[in-house]
Amino acid sequence: MDIKVYMQDLGIKARTAAKEISRAESSIKNRALLKIAEILEQNQTTLISENQKDLDAGQQNGLDAASLDRLTINTKGVQAMVEGLKQVAALPDPVGEISDLSYRPSGIQVGQMRVPLGVIGIIYESRPNVTIDAAALCLKSGNACILRGGSEAIHSNQAIAACITEGLAAAGLPIESVQIVTTADRAAVGELITLKDYVDVIVPRGGKSLIARISQEATIPVIKHLDGICHVYIDDKADLDKAIKIADNAKTHRYGVCNAMETLLVAEGIAAQVLPLLADIYLAKGVELRGCLKTCSLVPQAIRATEADWHTEYLAPTLSIKIVHGLDEAIEHISKYSSAHTEAIVTEDYTRARRFLREVDSSSVMINASTRFADGFEYGLGAEIGISTDKLHARGPVGLKGLTSLKYIVLGDGHIRQ
Amino acid sequence: MDIKVYMQDLGIKARTAAKEISRAESSIKNRALLKIAEILEQNQTTLISENQKDLDAGQQNGLDAASLDRLTINTKGVQAMVEGLKQVAALPDPVGEISDLSYRPSGIQVGQMRVPLGVIGIIYESRPNVTIDAAALCLKSGNACILRGGSEAIHSNQAIAACITEGLAAAGLPIESVQIVTTADRAAVGELITLKDYVDVIVPRGGKSLIARISQEATIPVIKHLDGICHVYIDDKADLDKAIKIADNAKTHRYGVCNAMETLLVAEGIAAQVLPLLADIYLAKGVELRGCLKTCSLVPQAIRATEADWHTEYLAPTLSIKIVHGLDEAIEHISKYSSAHTEAIVTEDYTRARRFLREVDSSSVMINASTRFADGFEYGLGAEIGISTDKLHARGPVGLKGLTSLKYIVLGDGHIRQ
Repeated sequence: MDIKVYMQDLGIKARTAAKEISRAESSIKNRALLKIAEILEQNQTTLISENQKDLDAGQQNGLDAASLDRLTINTKGVQAMVEGLKQVAALPDPVGEISDLSYRPSGIQVGQMRVPLGVIGIIYESRPNVTIDAAALCLKSGNACILRGGSEAIHSNQAIAACITEGLAAAGLPIESVQIVTTADRAAVGELITLKDYVDVIVPRGGKSLIARISQEATIPVIKHLDGICHVYIDDKADLDKAIKIADNAKTHRYGVCNAMETLLVAEGIAAQVLPLLADIYLAKGVELRGCLKTCSLVPQAIRATEADWHTEYLAPTLSIKIVHGLDEAIEHISKYSSAHTEAIVTEDYTRARRFLREVDSSSVMINASTRFADGFEYGLGAEIGISTDKLHARGPVGLKGLTSLKYIVLGDGHIRQ
Repeated sequence: MDIKVYMQDLGIKARTAAKEISRAESSIKNRALLKIAEILEQNQTTLISENQKDLDAGQQNGLDAASLDRLTINTKGVQAMVEGLKQVAALPDPVGEISDLSYRPSGIQVGQMRVPLGVIGIIYESRPNVTIDAAALCLKSGNACILRGGSEAIHSNQAIAACITEGLAAAGLPIESVQIVTTADRAAVGELITLKDYVDVIVPRGGKSLIARISQEATIPVIKHLDGICHVYIDDKADLDKAIKIADNAKTHRYGVCNAMETLLVAEGIAAQVLPLLADIYLAKGVELRGCLKTCSLVPQAIRATEADWHTEYLAPTLSIKIVHGLDEAIEHISKYSSAHTEAIVTEDYTRARRFLREVDSSSVMINASTRFADGFEYGLGAEIGISTDKLHARGPVGLKGLTSLKYIVLGDGHIRQ
């Protein structure tokens, strides 16, 4: 099979399907989503047995435990997919929404209508549940999609694809609205990210190196999510209880996630009070502490942080800690080392909180809340396709709206330009 | 001078200035805008004499009349720049605007804050007024900018740059907020569009080939404006008077602009009524008509259009005309040949108007209005930096908001994730 021809064929079919699905009524799209859920449930046994093939191959090929875990589909996993589909079906349809329609002095009415982007290419690792999540969000937002999951999940993805196709057909939507790349050939990714005429945007989901490579090589716009080097700054006007709760939660609630705190900044005026208490909590939970010189003198168990630490997304029970003079130095440190994902300040001081909110240039900026809240569900987007660390188009958690665009609409009554 | 080092230096300075100007209060930014206006007025004589140097050189180098016209700064031109600055100063400041702040079930408040993009690189042809327009919009939206105008306008641009610098300094803003590339070396463009670490977005303004080349070579996102192959469709349920007014205005109000109609589509049920009347108007104004076979039989003066005509942005008194069966064929033709800039339908039929609005995938879609309205001023944006034919980030006329992005803000009171 010529991979170039194969991918181009998917592109052409997606472009045709996109036209139809962009015009589909909400009720039809929702019916497809619920049909897919129903069919997934009915085919649970097949899904699990096809998944077993991938798991067996993965074990033979020496996949690590975490990867095997992400690859697994069990009864609970099928149920989660079904729930996800129902949730997306219940969300309001963003397509066709008209906003800001108002009269201009010329007499015309001008507003904006939300429209699908067209065709979305999604590249992800071997997590079969992403196949359903991504398909559901694209479908609901009126976009066609081409999904390229990790080759280790090929049997699982094909089984899921069959359910999706059946669901689309049952609802009367073009089955090419959701297409899954069925070749394990890695060249497929290179083709997908350069299908300029047929794909409007690429959403990569996965590790930093995958995303960096795709951004580098794509000739299509990429909504990318790089790393999350998130900071919490405890100001000397912080409420001690809130500071401890937030700094604990931001680090230890989950370690391997992008919105976990990686560096804690503490104002020197409160460091002696708050750091020993926090260190006890962290150490009890097995978190390794790496501190600046001052931190190490307050927390004897901490080892010295190097310059590399401030640049590192640990995704692990490791935390770097720096004592700063105050807000200015905190903002400066964040501006230098942060990946512009999520930062939080803990303070009772109105003016400092207001400055932090305005001056910190990250996709999420928080006052007195844990960085762990940076998430599409927590923000009320209903679902998310990823968290963008870009500035253009979509920033922060990307939900249905991030997969749409606004066109201008003009209503007149024979109006002409003078 | 090493052009790479020179451009990188501009980039570093812009990045530093961007941080400061992103935090500048509205009143300071407005003061700078009004100061620049004042200084331009005071230096009118210098501006005109510096501009004369460019005009002399242009004449010697054989620039055509239209280019020399665009290059000219006269008293009226200075006044237009001054007015433009005052208008931008009077616009509301988009930066820091908070929207959709609401409580989530977890107790946190989530909203979005409008923030500048950072550093904007603008590449344009030899039109000195663009220097002021672009600087004003970037400044007001809290962005630093690097401006690279056509080398034929080098003296004019340097004179304008001196006024901008003086105005910024008088208002206490960093003078590197607006930097103008002063080398005529064309390699500067290649450097600017690959300054990934220092420039956040490129806005090219100029001919199609310039923009196509920049989009091809840029490693930074580009807000691009390609061609405007705009259509008007006269439905058989159109009001005849409105149809004639709109089809006349869309073509003949101005010929060389991107929002002028290039192809007229007419439903066959109304063609015999409307086309002869329109042909008289067009022919009286010297518009060359190129039609499909049916058009030519109704309008003997029309010559046969070729396939290439449907793909052409004439920017001239030339119009292609096609008779179609009805709405479906009109939408199909638009979807195939349009550049997705602006399309209009003339109809009194509610259902067809509604379908056209939803199904036509262009940056502006109009009912019973002339395509000439597709413009930032007419849409109430106050000013525009260009018209985007892209789908991502900004679509249609791009004003101050198009030069900003939304970050999420979260307000809590010690909230942690459960």
